[in-house]
Amino acid sequence: MRFDHVGVATRDVDRLTGLFEPLLDAPVAHRETFDGLDVTFLDLGNGYLELLEPLDGEGPIARSLDRDGPGIHHVAFATTDVAAALATARDHGIDLVDEQPRPGAWGHDVAFLHPASTGGVLVEFVEHG
Amino acid sequence: MRFDHVGVATRDVDRLTGLFEPLLDAPVAHRETFDGLDVTFLDLGNGYLELLEPLDGEGPIARSLDRDGPGIHHVAFATTDVAAALATARDHGIDLVDEQPRPGAWGHDVAFLHPASTGGVLVEFVEHG
Repeated sequence: MRFDHVGVATRDVDRLTGLFEPLLDAPVAHRETFDGLDVTFLDLGNGYLELLEPLDGEGPIARSLDRDGPGIHHVAFATTDVAAALATARDHGIDLVDEQPRPGAWGHDVAFLHPASTGGVLVEFVEHG
Repeated sequence: MRFDHVGVATRDVDRLTGLFEPLLDAPVAHRETFDGLDVTFLDLGNGYLELLEPLDGEGPIARSLDRDGPGIHHVAFATTDVAAALATARDHGIDLVDEQPRPGAWGHDVAFLHPASTGGVLVEFVEHG
């Protein structure tokens, strides 16, 4: 499974885009409002840096910011079949946040694994549409 | 600048290797003892997952585990010139952990930026030898 992106929780996606775009020479590949989040993907050539700003105080990114402050939130790996990847995870005894693939940003199908099962790492599987 | 790896702090690199290697179909690319750490790189094809276990209670990974528990510690971006990347970071007013490139694991030259300057994200620049 290949690297897809690192997701970063922020309270100011514009400021962080203005910082990382020139620092990493990583142009904005996509931006949208999705599921109560302002989401920006910066293109690293072999994957993305995903910046996530909650538009209100609800949801997992807002809770992560309240609990841990801004910073790296998750790492996503690309697969051609999220459902099969979830089945593999289940076979390894890993607890799932999402029992089934669900729509994610940028038209992707995604699913998250529970970090308590994966060494504290919040893992996302991503299937590009 | 391209994605290079995500670094994960763990108290049990063997257990985490045994979990992520089959889950991600990511074979061990390199393993060494470096700077008081048991370091394993899993190959994602387009980058690496770096697992870091401190061999004693000293150093930044041990402190991170004590403070935040296990999980994602940093994200590293590949550059052909760490010194030039540091100069760019300095020009953007970013505080540096390492003012100069220093030897890292796997024979790489590396430098870290201060997360207070980069939205809470601990950023590493990596130059492969």
